[in-house]
Formats: sequence, structure tokens, C-alpha cells
Amino acid sequence: MKTQVKNILEGVRDGRITVDEALTSLKTQPFADIGYAKVDLHRSIRQGMPEVIYGEGKTARQIEGITDTMLANGQQRILITRLSAEKYEILKEKYPLAYNEQSRCAALGAPPAPDGIGTIAVATGGTSDIPVAEEAAQTAEFFGNKVVRLYDVGVAGIHRLMSCKEEIMHASVIIAVAGMEGALASVVGGLADCPVIAVPTSVGYGASFGGLSALLSMLNSCASGVSVVNIDNGFGAGYLASMINHMEAEK
Amino acid sequence: MKTQVKNILEGVRDGRITVDEALTSLKTQPFADIGYAKVDLHRSIRQGMPEVIYGEGKTARQIEGITDTMLANGQQRILITRLSAEKYEILKEKYPLAYNEQSRCAALGAPPAPDGIGTIAVATGGTSDIPVAEEAAQTAEFFGNKVVRLYDVGVAGIHRLMSCKEEIMHASVIIAVAGMEGALASVVGGLADCPVIAVPTSVGYGASFGGLSALLSMLNSCASGVSVVNIDNGFGAGYLASMINHMEAEK
Amino acid sequence: MKTQVKNILEGVRDGRITVDEALTSLKTQPFADIGYAKVDLHRSIRQGMPEVIYGEGKTARQIEGITDTMLANGQQRILITRLSAEKYEILKEKYPLAYNEQSRCAALGAPPAPDGIGTIAVATGGTSDIPVAEEAAQTAEFFGNKVVRLYDVGVAGIHRLMSCKEEIMHASVIIAVAGMEGALASVVGGLADCPVIAVPTSVGYGASFGGLSALLSMLNSCASGVSVVNIDNGFGAGYLASMINHMEAEK
Amino acid sequence: MKTQVKNILEGVRDGRITVDEALTSLKTQPFADIGYAKVDLHRSIRQGMPEVIYGEGKTARQIEGITDTMLANGQQRILITRLSAEKYEILKEKYPLAYNEQSRCAALGAPPAPDGIGTIAVATGGTSDIPVAEEAAQTAEFFGNKVVRLYDVGVAGIHRLMSCKEEIMHASVIIAVAGMEGALASVVGGLADCPVIAVPTSVGYGASFGGLSALLSMLNSCASGVSVVNIDNGFGAGYLASMINHMEAEK
Amino acid sequence: MKTQVKNILEGVRDGRITVDEALTSLKTQPFADIGYAKVDLHRSIRQGMPEVIYGEGKTARQIEGITDTMLANGQQRILITRLSAEKYEILKEKYPLAYNEQSRCAALGAPPAPDGIGTIAVATGGTSDIPVAEEAAQTAEFFGNKVVRLYDVGVAGIHRLMSCKEEIMHASVIIAVAGMEGALASVVGGLADCPVIAVPTSVGYGASFGGLSALLSMLNSCASGVSVVNIDNGFGAGYLASMINHMEAEK
Amino acid sequence: MKTQVKNILEGVRDGRITVDEALTSLKTQPFADIGYAKVDLHRSIRQGMPEVIYGEGKTARQIEGITDTMLANGQQRILITRLSAEKYEILKEKYPLAYNEQSRCAALGAPPAPDGIGTIAVATGGTSDIPVAEEAAQTAEFFGNKVVRLYDVGVAGIHRLMSCKEEIMHASVIIAVAGMEGALASVVGGLADCPVIAVPTSVGYGASFGGLSALLSMLNSCASGVSVVNIDNGFGAGYLASMINHMEAEK
Amino acid sequence: MKTQVKNILEGVRDGRITVDEALTSLKTQPFADIGYAKVDLHRSIRQGMPEVIYGEGKTARQIEGITDTMLANGQQRILITRLSAEKYEILKEKYPLAYNEQSRCAALGAPPAPDGIGTIAVATGGTSDIPVAEEAAQTAEFFGNKVVRLYDVGVAGIHRLMSCKEEIMHASVIIAVAGMEGALASVVGGLADCPVIAVPTSVGYGASFGGLSALLSMLNSCASGVSVVNIDNGFGAGYLASMINHMEAEK
Amino acid sequence: MKTQVKNILEGVRDGRITVDEALTSLKTQPFADIGYAKVDLHRSIRQGMPEVIYGEGKTARQIEGITDTMLANGQQRILITRLSAEKYEILKEKYPLAYNEQSRCAALGAPPAPDGIGTIAVATGGTSDIPVAEEAAQTAEFFGNKVVRLYDVGVAGIHRLMSCKEEIMHASVIIAVAGMEGALASVVGGLADCPVIAVPTSVGYGASFGGLSALLSMLNSCASGVSVVNIDNGFGAGYLASMINHMEAEK
Repeated sequence: MKTQVKNILEGVRDGRITVDEALTSLKTQPFADIGYAKVDLHRSIRQGMPEVIYGEGKTARQIEGITDTMLANGQQRILITRLSAEKYEILKEKYPLAYNEQSRCAALGAPPAPDGIGTIAVATGGTSDIPVAEEAAQTAEFFGNKVVRLYDVGVAGIHRLMSCKEEIMHASVIIAVAGMEGALASVVGGLADCPVIAVPTSVGYGASFGGLSALLSMLNSCASGVSVVNIDNGFGAGYLASMINHMEAEK
Repeated sequence: MKTQVKNILEGVRDGRITVDEALTSLKTQPFADIGYAKVDLHRSIRQGMPEVIYGEGKTARQIEGITDTMLANGQQRILITRLSAEKYEILKEKYPLAYNEQSRCAALGAPPAPDGIGTIAVATGGTSDIPVAEEAAQTAEFFGNKVVRLYDVGVAGIHRLMSCKEEIMHASVIIAVAGMEGALASVVGGLADCPVIAVPTSVGYGASFGGLSALLSMLNSCASGVSVVNIDNGFGAGYLASMINHMEAEK
Repeated sequence: MKTQVKNILEGVRDGRITVDEALTSLKTQPFADIGYAKVDLHRSIRQGMPEVIYGEGKTARQIEGITDTMLANGQQRILITRLSAEKYEILKEKYPLAYNEQSRCAALGAPPAPDGIGTIAVATGGTSDIPVAEEAAQTAEFFGNKVVRLYDVGVAGIHRLMSCKEEIMHASVIIAVAGMEGALASVVGGLADCPVIAVPTSVGYGASFGGLSALLSMLNSCASGVSVVNIDNGFGAGYLASMINHMEAEK
Repeated sequence: MKTQVKNILEGVRDGRITVDEALTSLKTQPFADIGYAKVDLHRSIRQGMPEVIYGEGKTARQIEGITDTMLANGQQRILITRLSAEKYEILKEKYPLAYNEQSRCAALGAPPAPDGIGTIAVATGGTSDIPVAEEAAQTAEFFGNKVVRLYDVGVAGIHRLMSCKEEIMHASVIIAVAGMEGALASVVGGLADCPVIAVPTSVGYGASFGGLSALLSMLNSCASGVSVVNIDNGFGAGYLASMINHMEAEK
Repeated sequence: MKTQVKNILEGVRDGRITVDEALTSLKTQPFADIGYAKVDLHRSIRQGMPEVIYGEGKTARQIEGITDTMLANGQQRILITRLSAEKYEILKEKYPLAYNEQSRCAALGAPPAPDGIGTIAVATGGTSDIPVAEEAAQTAEFFGNKVVRLYDVGVAGIHRLMSCKEEIMHASVIIAVAGMEGALASVVGGLADCPVIAVPTSVGYGASFGGLSALLSMLNSCASGVSVVNIDNGFGAGYLASMINHMEAEK
Repeated sequence: MKTQVKNILEGVRDGRITVDEALTSLKTQPFADIGYAKVDLHRSIRQGMPEVIYGEGKTARQIEGITDTMLANGQQRILITRLSAEKYEILKEKYPLAYNEQSRCAALGAPPAPDGIGTIAVATGGTSDIPVAEEAAQTAEFFGNKVVRLYDVGVAGIHRLMSCKEEIMHASVIIAVAGMEGALASVVGGLADCPVIAVPTSVGYGASFGGLSALLSMLNSCASGVSVVNIDNGFGAGYLASMINHMEAEK
Repeated sequence: MKTQVKNILEGVRDGRITVDEALTSLKTQPFADIGYAKVDLHRSIRQGMPEVIYGEGKTARQIEGITDTMLANGQQRILITRLSAEKYEILKEKYPLAYNEQSRCAALGAPPAPDGIGTIAVATGGTSDIPVAEEAAQTAEFFGNKVVRLYDVGVAGIHRLMSCKEEIMHASVIIAVAGMEGALASVVGGLADCPVIAVPTSVGYGASFGGLSALLSMLNSCASGVSVVNIDNGFGAGYLASMINHMEAEK
Repeated sequence: MKTQVKNILEGVRDGRITVDEALTSLKTQPFADIGYAKVDLHRSIRQGMPEVIYGEGKTARQIEGITDTMLANGQQRILITRLSAEKYEILKEKYPLAYNEQSRCAALGAPPAPDGIGTIAVATGGTSDIPVAEEAAQTAEFFGNKVVRLYDVGVAGIHRLMSCKEEIMHASVIIAVAGMEGALASVVGGLADCPVIAVPTSVGYGASFGGLSALLSMLNSCASGVSVVNIDNGFGAGYLASMINHMEAEK
């Protein structure tokens, strides 16, 4: 960014750019304004990096508008999260999307070969946590990570979790997904020596209060290296895990 | 109780008791009313069973009044819980109390020899949960149970808990006490095949909300056989554990 | 479990098992991994003990997969809880299930003759709490307990509850189910001398907050011997009650 | 009030009062403004009716100022609630107050002979609820009611409550005060056929959340005729009970 | 009740009743147990008093069963509350019900002539609070009270409320119903000199949290004589208001 | 108002009005009572000022009744908010409404030329906050304000917000609408030197708790000049913004 | 700000400033970094405008450091809010502060003559809300506004509020401060035609939950023109009121 | 760990270890049990890695016991967090601790030279968040990281944050600490391309609810790469940041 500003200033110095033009340029940002959305184009500049559209709360038409803007600006790989089957039915007419019903993720463009530091392990407390876990896993894969899935390993049957000890202890980053068994993050965090990203899910019943109980349980974990993202935020966990798994490369 | 009513009715039939006397008797209950408290005398009837006074929110003088009423009615063993050191200083002048500062329990009369089905295991997540755990443990001991203490076995270091696996799997009843690591109840419940009584404590910090997070975490446990008592209610857990540990004997 | 490990180690000593095989065996646990679920097979080992599938959040196909795995491993009696009528319609084509619409429980295999210490009493505050109560009662019956039902005995009409005093005072364990009248657990706990398992239900209205009010009311009970399970968790209460009612037998 | 307005209007018609004077009079209200407080003088007009000062959050000097204003306006009986011992020490120098440490109520002027429809029963769940109960009872007495106290009759020992059945069934109004045993209001409401005013108290521990649990429990009572006032609001309950107990007289 | 017991005891004394029969009689209560419900028959004993069935959470068949039991026991006037239009369609085939869609109340038997102390005023903050208000008003009318309706008098337009000042100041009891304007109870309570029953409703939006905000606002009212019933509990308010409005008559 | 009272009083003095008529007049208020609603007619008196009907919780027929009353009293411009498409379909048969599906606002009568102090800027954190923002914007326009829309400028991409810095710094009032990015109000408040009205929306997911998180975040803003209206209350924000933007004119 | 940037760019064009110097200047902001605080110096540039230091959570020494930095940069009038008496004792040794114990505000420099559009009215529900109200009032005065105080006008005695109707209807902006009577904002908002800023206070008891109940009540006000600031945030209300009261002047 | 087990098994195969000894060894864990605590000795095995003692809820004597056990097992560098000044006064007599009053951290042994991937930036919203920030910063330094402090950069004055843009964009990991301005995490997360660890603090007032508001605000951040730790958990953030900053080295 600094260079861009420097360029503008040098243009002013050299008389190539007027003061008013410079004023305008300094305000211009790398996004396109299409009224209902300001489409970020940051990543398309760095060739190959995927861009993400959060599908919920947007109409199929709005998603289409954003997608078109991205494509027109050279973006080649796009991930659409929280895409309902209904909206997918509309969008697939136009784009060659790879859609997964369970995770409600749609991908435009093929995932790259994994190039992270190591493997990202995605664990769930139960079977019903899998959709959120898949959002996390597919996001991580889309951003170039190798993912291992450890499903239904809730701590109430600790031997099931222990049978995955090997995968847990060898992971670079672990994503622990649970709606009832918030304890999963604690136990995994105690076993592993790597960052653990806890994702509460809203799938429990009774006093699970839409994921709040799991959220609190995860925040209160005494295990070091555990942090928490929003309830059901599989994408956020997958993205952050990828970021951590590419630490050396990024800097 | 039924017999008592039957006796009264037979007395009426036989003319030994007048109708009015019977009316009165039917209403008379086994407690003494001393104004600020209705002192239960149920247990003194069953010789040897201890009686309990909840000390919080009562003045030393009120506790004294209740104690005297109990003693006067033949009660021989009394447990006073939540007794502050200040009140103990006053009461010890009069009664030969065995007081424990950590649990704030005072006992009048010696504990009986353990006669339960098996052993009650009391586990804590951390060091600061010990006072509540001791209230549970000492209550259980006072009611005639053998107790084994497993302290500081929070699940964030699962190997510490696993080192106690033997004690956990051989217990009759387990009391799991934790303020931050509500997960303890889940893991213990998954390991054991016996009833687990979970006690949330208020000792955590941050989003532990005075034990609420641990409480919710424990309620959401997927392990079968786990139930929960009120935050910091060590006495309740110890008493219930004793009740379960004496199942056969009681009926 | 200990024996199993001992066997493996003796096999190593005697040369029957190689170190690597032993390593693998030590990690192998008594469950089958079918991808979306790790199916526990613990109970099938102890011939005759029923196994449970929690039906909510699982597709009919997933439940089928788990059932098949259990059957293939010799499990003979299976209880499926929280099974919607829709999923039952699919599953009944394949398995001879005994399904109860009110409790949403489906049983595979006949219930055994009751062999517990005594009777389990299941009480409800109102008529609308009955579905949860039935989940508890049928679970208890499936695990070999005699159950007595005391429905619509909310404390606002204490004489209705008092008319069941006999059943309450003779029960081995009591399950108190209520959505509005959380007080039920307190009163029952005060009347009875046995463990009381309180189950808050989510059927109330207004400031009942989906069972939260009943939950708090039950946790705050001053009656000794009361503990609480999750909102609507009829299964958990039934299972725990059975566990307590089989105390002597289990050890 | 209507008469007062009519008087003013007739004065205008008759030329005794100018339009501007009338305008002013219509706006003048029966209270005295002393800067930090607007002192109501409504009741002093109706000779003999007591007036109330809520002492919390007011300095001794402010209470003094309000008291003086009332006395100067002919008020003869004043009740000061929530008066700390410290403030009482200051005020007693000046006024002949009857102060009760437990309820923190101070009364100026003697209570009248009871003249209500019947008796007001004040019941508490435990010993530690007595201070709030006394605030209610003394308020009711100050407003001319006969009060019967039923303390420590929590429902966990239902026989203690049942021993007071007579008093409960003969009361005109019942005030049920409880911090842990919110159930008290339900049971009492089911036994009695008169209005029950429930007062949650903040004296519990654990998941009582400063009276919130009792409050919710009381609101969810299925007993007809139960209503609730704010946590610890003994005065409000006593005042409302008096109002109901004087129904006929008031109209 | 006392007489009933006395009769039994005298029967025992005189030999008319055996001890066992007396035991049974003493336990027999004035309700009929029809499995899913214990039908109270108290009121049918006091000829003419209406009885109430809470319709929510009960099937049409269950309501029918309860109704039949009541009728068979001589009950002549029955009020069914929270009766959905669907269930009404089924029940009207059998009973001559007077049904009101707005309040979802159905009445069997004609309302009596009002015989209370005075008039019950039912006020609402807005138009959408009317259904709950009607439940209160129709309940009060069914129990023999004269009702005046003051709808849409929220305090944000205080002149609308002030225009009803006359009705407010002459009422015996006031029911203040509001979902957003919890303030209504405070202002009405300040204007009137009679008991005010506040009913929070769940009809608000945003931070009204299903009536919780109105509930808290009403509990915090500084006006004397205000008490609160559960959210949307129009029946409870109407019943309590009737009880208060019949104070003299009842005792 | 004062004049109106003065007129009445002068009429009394001059004998044109009797005392009783005056009493009645003093009570008469500028609204029409149509049973289910008290229709305010204040604004119609001040020619040209629009009047507002809150459509939610009212039937189409009720809205029609209120509209007719307003029109009959000379009201010329009416704004109906929270009008569902279904109700609009009914009402449009009768009135020439300008309806906007996104904001669910319907306007009767053309908006006036803007006459406020300056421009009102309406900003949203994301695309899904737009419906609430449109309710605010259209309300402001209906009350005679120039509005500039700044949509999808959430602070997680601060450059998007910064690109609107000019509009933010030149606005008279800013409305910040956000469901997830409650931070928007803080950042905007720090940038601008004018009043900022924050509107939390209920469109988030996870721990957004229906707008509660955004609400709290906005209330905790350290920026001076920020205040908050209810969740989703676009109308309230638009109305208040208009009020502020017409400050000089109003007084 | 725009001009400043333009100056820099013109300097670059004219060769007076190098590109690097310009880069630095563009990043330099009008604040001084003193380690533990970044002291804003914005207002000192606009001669005469006061600057504010939030005293809570800062040591006397830190406040001193910030004050010195401000004074050194030409700031002449400073308001310190939430300044405890203890810290004031330290600071008064060095600065000629005008300190008010009730509001805990300290002012350096004399308040200017009021120059706003009209008067700001500050109303409180009770006597104990006065400290927060004074913070608001003194802040408004410090920023050049005329303030009228209307204390103890809670709606439970609506006549007290009505006696201030004149002041309310003539105010430019109203600040409504209340801890229990959140209703105050609604009623005031309904009476007045100007912006109302509601300030919940934490001084209530029982279910007031430290101001939360008042906060919710205020947010749910149906009166138009009402917005809310944080609990106890008297400063925020006073500052915003001043901003609104200077609308014309500011632009 | 695997090797250790392999060694044991090979010992059994080779006859060096008996089966019973192996059984014992397999259960022996690398911690020391000192009654009230199970002291982890994991890190002392990996020479040079520091070990941590959480000081809150432990007596000085207990901390001493744990420290001695660690030292006796070869641990050379120890960090004690949440150590009150009082306990420090006791401990410093025995150990050469480097204590910081603000962060309440005490370090035994000198910090190593930084060897992480890059720099960890620690930012705070205000001055009063600094103690928690220092706990994070000193923890990170103790684990071998270079730390840059960016204090008092709350988003309400976005220019202050922008002046640190350089440091933010060049950091490896960012820790955002805030009690009122939870928005800080969002804005920082939007600016940076690295993992952001958000730490809510409990230092706010009003509706900050002890950090809950900031916590929720941070969880709802729309910025990618943001995760959250418990309220006030500076240590957790510092430790996790270090873990991420050493990604390559660790694996």
C-alpha cells in the first residue's frame, strides 16, 4: 500500500498527476462499489488467492452481482459459504460451482495443492456437528491445506478420542467443533502442543442455548493454546487455521 | 408414618384417644418450632443418623438455638455446614466441635465406620476447587462412607486424570467438582460406569460467571449417568452420594 | 479392561504378539468407526445390556448405519431416542421396532424382567410434561426397572401430590419432570428419602424461558438428595435412575 | 381531585379567581419541592394515613429534609424503610423513631388498631429470609393490619408448612418470602383461596443469582391467585397486602 | 376440609367406618384421576363456581376427557383458556362453547351477574396487547366481575392515558397489559389507589426479548400496589383481580 | 395547548361555557378512540406534518380503520411502517400507497422537499442490514430530509468505510446500522463530529443473539455523540435523525 | 482536515516538501503519545473548545501526565470526569480545579456563556439518580449550554412530572436519568417534541440488575425521538445533548 | 511419548521388564502428585522450556510447594501469573523473582533471546486495559518473542490506531486487548493479514457487564483471522501468540 501512495506522491512531484487527481487517488480503494455491497478486490491483485462471499442474508441476485464483479476483476477462485440449496440451484445455471449440501459451501475454481506447514485436524464431538466441521474443513482445503477429519470423538467416550491421539499430536493446527461437548476443546488442547481453534455449534438441545453453553465451556478451557470463534463459524476457524498453517510462507 | 396414623386411628376406635386429640395428633409433626426456625427432628428418631444445620444466613445464636433443640431431642450427631470461622469461635465455647477451615464444616459427634456399598471418589479440576470438594467429602464421611480424593485432575492435562483411572473405575459414586473445567464431569462420566454427581464451583474468572459456565457445561454432558447439583453445593453432592452408596441398606 | 491389556502384554512376553501388533492393539478400542460416527460396542460385550442411539441430528440413514454396525457386533437390544415419526417410518421397514409416538422412543428387542432394587417413580407437574416423562419411564423399563407413573401432580394442587405420597415414599428413585412447576422436585425431595432426579422441561410459556426457570428452581431446591439433568433429558434421568436402582448388582 | 378542579372552575365562573390564578392552581400539585426530592403530601390530607420514605440512596440529611417537610404539612405517621443503622443513629437524635434492626424499618407515630378484612400471613422459606419478611410484616402492621408470621416453612420439608395449614387457609392475604425455595409461593397458592403475594429474596447462593431464580420460579407458579413483586421488596408486598385487606373500606 | 376429617374420625369412633376405610378416606381427595390428568373437583362442590382448563399442551381429546369428568361431577360452568381454533373446531361438535378467537377462551355456561366490590379496569399499552388483555377481561367476567376496557393507552402518549383517568381512579382493581410499554404499570399505579396487576406480553420486538423487558420494567415500578404475573398470563391476572374484587364475599 | 386551556377558562369566566362543559373539554384530547386504538391527531393540526402507523401486530382492517380516521381528520401524509406484503396487498386496493418491499414501508402522500440543516448519512455494516437501514432512510426522507446511503462499510474492511470519510464528515446526523459489526458506530462516531444514532440489527448469527451483541457493543462505544435505539428500530432512528436535523426550525 | 492534506500535496507540487516528508506528515495525527495514552489534541486547535479526560481506570499520575500534555499544547479548558475524591486531593495541589463531589467532575477553566439553540432539561426518576444527572448537567454546562434540573419526577407520581410540563415542552433537548423508573424516558418522550436522551442508572435494587432493566425499558420506549446511552453515562448524554443543542452553529 | 511406550514394550519382549512393571510404567505419567496439585513436569524434560503456575486461588504456600517440585525436577525457568503483591512479598524471600505489579507476573529465570517468526503486536483500546495487555506481552517475551506495544488505540479515535498501521501490518501475530472497545479486534483484523487474538477485559462500566459485551463484540467480528480467549486472559493470548509465532520451529 505504501508504494502505491509513494507512486501517487511522486506523480504529483513530477507533475504527472494534479493535486486534485492525487486527492482522489488517495481516497480510491481496491474495491468495487455495486450499491448493496462493496466488493473487496484485494486478493485478486495477489494472483491465485481465493476470495470469499458470505452467502447468508444475500439474495441469489446479490451473490451473482458480487461474483461477476470479482470475475471481471480477475479473481479466479471464489468460495461461497452459507449458500442455501435454493440459491445454489439458481447460481449453478451460470457458474460451474462445486457445491456441498452438508457444509453449504460452493467453490468456483479447483482447490490448490496443499502447501501449508503441516496437517489441519478437524474434530467433532458428535455426528450432528459435522456440517459446521465440513465448512471448516472445506475452507481449509480451499485455501491450500491438508485436512484430516476426526468425527464423533466427544469426550464422554474418551477412548474414541484417544484412538485419534496420533493424529491430534501430529497436527499443525486443530479445529475442535462441538455443540454439547464443549469439553472437547479442553481435552484436545491438553493433548496437543499446537494451536486449537474451538468452534461451538448450535446443534445441542436443552440448556445448550444455541451454542452458548459450548461457547462458555470453550472459553473457560484451562488448556493453553485454545482460542474460540463464533458459534457455527466453521469458515472462520478454517480460514484462521490456514493462516496459522502458512505462517512462514506469509511473512 | 403410616403406622403412626394407624395407631392414632386404632386409638380412636378403641376409645383410648378422643376425636379432638386425634385431630391434634394428626397435625403434630416431628419438628420443634423455635420462632426463627422449625427444627426437624426426623432423624433423631432413627437413632444414630446425623442431622444437618446450614450455617449461612443464620447468626451464631440462631445456630446455637437449633443445636440445643436437637440435642434436647436426643440427636447425637450434628453436622454444621457453611460455618464461618467467626461463628465457630463463638460456638466452640459451648460444643466440642471438630471444625475444618477449608470446608467450613463443623461436626458434633464422631463419624461412624463406613458402611456403604463401595467408595465415593471426589475429584476436582483444580487446586482452588478443593474447599467445595472437602465439603462434599466430609459430608460423605460424616454419613458413613469411605472417600477417596482425586484433586487437581482437570481434563486440560488428561494424563493426570488418566493416572486415577483405577480409582474412577472402581468407585460406587463419583463427585466431580470444577469451576473452570466443567468438562471434568463429561470425561469422568465417560470413563466410569457409576453415577456421577457434578458440582460446579464459583471459583473461576472471566466468562466463568460465578460457576454458571461450569454448570451449563456439566448439564450438557453427553455422558450417561451424570447429574448436577447447585453451584458450590458440596454438601448436597456428598449427601446424595451417600444416599446412593447406601441404596440397599436404606430400603 | 485391565485384563485385556494384561493379555496383550503377556502375548508380547511369550512372543505370540510382536511389539508393533501390541502397539496397535493397545490403541484399538471397542468401537467401530463408520466415518460419521464412532459406534460404541462396549455393551454388546456384556451380553444382554442394551445400547442407545440418540436419534436427533442424525439422518435415518445414519441411524441405520449405526444400528447395522451394532447388530453386526452382536448387540441384541437397542434403544433409539428422539426418533421423529418421519425417521421411524423409514426405519420400521427394516427393523421390528416398538415405537412410542409420545416419547419418540423406539426399542429393538424386548425389555427384560425388572431386576432393580425397587421401583422407580416418575412424576410430572402437568399433562404437557408427559412426553419427557415417558422418555424417562420407557428408558428405565428398557434397562430392567419397574416404573410407576404419577402424572399431573404439580404442587399448586398439593393434595394431588399428597394422594401419591405412598408411591413417593416407597420408591427407590424418583424422577420429577416439570416445565412450570420446578417446585415439584423440592416437595418430592422433602417427602422422600431416596435420590430424586429432576428433569426440567421446555414446555412452559412466558418467563419459563424454554425450561431455564424450572432448571434454576430445581437447582435451588433445599431438599437433600435432589440433582438435576439437562432440560428435556428424559433419557438421562431414566438411565441414571436405572443405574442407581441397580447399585448392588453393578458392583 | 375532581372536586378540587370543580372548585377552581367555579371560582373562575364566580369571578373569585382570575384565569391566570386558575391556570396556576390547576398546575399546582399536592407536593413540596425541596430540590433533591418532590415530597408527596397526598396522604397528610387524608388525616391519619401514614406516609413512606424509601431510605436507601438518600443521605440522613435528605431523609431529615423530607421528614421535616412532611411534619410541617401535618403528616403524623411516617414509615422510613431501608434505613441503615448508621443513618438511624443520626435521625434518632431528632425524631422519636421506633427502629427495627432486622427489617431496617423506622416508624414515627404509633401503629393503628388493625381494621382490615382479615389477617395477613407472612411466610418464609428459611431463616435467612426473615429480614425481608419483617419489612413486609411491619409495613402491613403500620398500615393497620393484623399479621401472623410463619417462618422457616420451606417446601423441602412440606410437613412444616402443613402444620401451618390452618393459618394459611384462614388468611385474607398471604405474603410468601423465599430466596431459594421459590416453590413456596406455588404450594401456598395451591393451599389457599386468597391472593398470594410472592417476594423473591436475594439471600440464596449458587444458581440463585441474587433472587432471579426465585423470581422466575414464582412467576411460573401454576397456582391461581399468585403475583410477584420485586426481589427483596418486602415493603411493596406489605403495602399491597394491606391495600387488598382493606378493599371494602377503601371504596 | 376440617369437618370432613372430623366426620371420618367420628365415623371411626362410632364404628360406622373401619380403620382401613378411614385410612383410605383420609387419603381420598376431591379430584378424579384420569391418567394423564388429575381433574380438580373442588369448585363443583361449591355450587356455581366455574372451573378452568388450561388448553395449551393438551390434545383436544385430553381436554374432552377432563371436561367430561367435570361435567359428570356436577360442574356446570367451565372456562377453557389457550384453546386454539383447531381444537375448538373439534370440541364445539360436542359442547355448546362460547369461543372468542382473539383471547382463545371458550366458555361453557353463561357468565353470572357481576357481584364484585367494584369494577375491574383492563388497560393495554398498544393494539397488539389486546389478545392477552381479552383473556384477562373475559376471565374476570366469567368469574362475575364488571370489566371496563381501556385499550391503546401507552404512556408514550400520556394524554391518551389521562383521558381515562376517571376510569382508572374509580376502579377496584386494574390490570395493566403491555409488551413494550412496561411503564404503563408504573404510571397507572401512580394514578390509582387500588391494586394494579401488571401483565407483560410477548408481542414486542427488538430488545423486548419476548416480554422480559416489560416484565423487568414492571417489577421495578416504584408505584405502590403493583404486582406482576407471568408473561402473557392474562388468565392469572383476571383470576387474581376477581379474587381481590370479591374480598369481602370470600371470607 | 396552553392557549386551548386558557380559551376554555375564559369561556367559563365569560359564561360561554358551563363548568361541566369545561370539565369535559379539559379532559378531551386531540385523538380519536376507535376501540382497538386511540388515533393521535396531533400532527394533522399542524398542517403538512406526516403521521405514522406502526403496522406490526395490527390487522389490515385495523390499519385501515386508523388510516380512515386520520384521513377524516385532515391528515394528508401518512407513513405505515412494518407493513407486510400481505397486508399491503389488501390496503393498496383502497389507498394509493407507495410501498417498498425491502423496508416494508408504505407512504401515503408525496415526500416534501428536504428542508433540514444538512444531510443524514445512513451507513450499514453489511448487505443484510440494508432493510433496516432503508426503513431509517425512507422515514427520514418522508419527514423532509436529504439522505445519503453508505452501505456495506463494515469496519472489518476499514478502507471501505474510509472511502466514505467525506460523506461521514459532512453529515448533519449519521445513522449507523449493523448486526454483527457493532463496531461501526464507534468508528463512525470517532470520525464524525455530529450526533450518531446506532441501530443494532437482528440479522447476525451465532453469538449475535438477535442483535443483543451489537446493541451492547454500541452502548459501550467510547466515541462521544453516539446513542442507541432499539434493535431493528430503523424508524426510530430515522425519526430522531430528522428531529435533530430540523433543530432550528422546530423551536 | 481536507485543507491540511491539500496543503501538504501543494507543498509537494511546489517542491517545498519532499515526498518522504509528505508521507510522514500524512501519517502524523494531532495527538501526543505518552506511552500509556495517546492524548487527543484535536480540540485545542479549535481555540476555546474544552477537552475531556475520563478519570476512571487511570491513576492520578496518569491523569496529571495527560493534563500536562494538553496544557502544553495550548488546551485551556479541561473537564475530568469520574474523578474520585482521592485523586482530586492529589490533583488539586497542582491545578485550580473546580470539583463537584456528587458528579465527580472536575473542571479546569471557567464555563463559557451558554450559546446553544435552547435549554437542556435534565430530569431524574428519583433522588438517588442525581449524581449521574449532575454529571450530565455539568458536562452540558461546561460545553456552553443552559441547563434546567427536574429532579425526583418519577412516573409513579405522574403529577410531579406533570408539574414540570412547561420545562419539558420548552426544552431543546431532554436528558432522562433513571435507575428504576425507566418509564421516565417514555413519558417524557411522549410529552416533548424534542430529542430525548435516556440514561439508565445502576442505583436500583432487586431485579434492576445494575441498570439493565432500566436500559431495556428505555430501549423499548414507544415514544419517538428517544435514544439511549450506556448505563450511568451522564457525560455521554450531556455531550450529545450539547452537540444537538449546537446543531446550527456546528455546521 | 510413542517411543517411551515402545521402549517399555521392547523391555517386556526382551525380558528386561516384567509384565507387572510394564503395567505400572504405562500408567506412570510425567507429573508429581503433591496432594493439592498434580505438578506437570513435561516441559522440564525438554530442557529450557519455561513452565507456568497460575497463582490465583492458590496460597503462597501452595505456590511454593509447586515451585519447589518443579525446581527439584530440573525446571529452570518458571512464570507465575496472577500473583498478588501480598503473595509475592512472601515468595520473594525464597526465590529471586522478577515481579511486575501491573501484570502481576513473576518470572524465575531470565527470558531467552527472541527466536520467533516475527514480532507480536499487543494493542489496547484504552489505558485501563494495560494490565491485561502486559500479562500477554510479558508472557510472550518469557516464551521468546519480540513484542511491540500499541496502547490506547481505541477505534473511537481511529487516527490513533491508523498511526500504528505500520506495526499492525508487519506483525506476525496481533493481540487486541479491550474492555469497552471490542471493536478494536474487528478493525485490527481488517487491517492485518495475520492471526489476531482478541482479549476482552473486565475493566469497562455500565453495560460492559464485566467484559461480556466486549467478548460478544469480538466473537461477532466479521474480520477473518480473529479468535477470542477468555475475559482478562492475557496469559492465554500471550501463550497462543507465542505458539503461532514459533510454528515452523515447533514441528
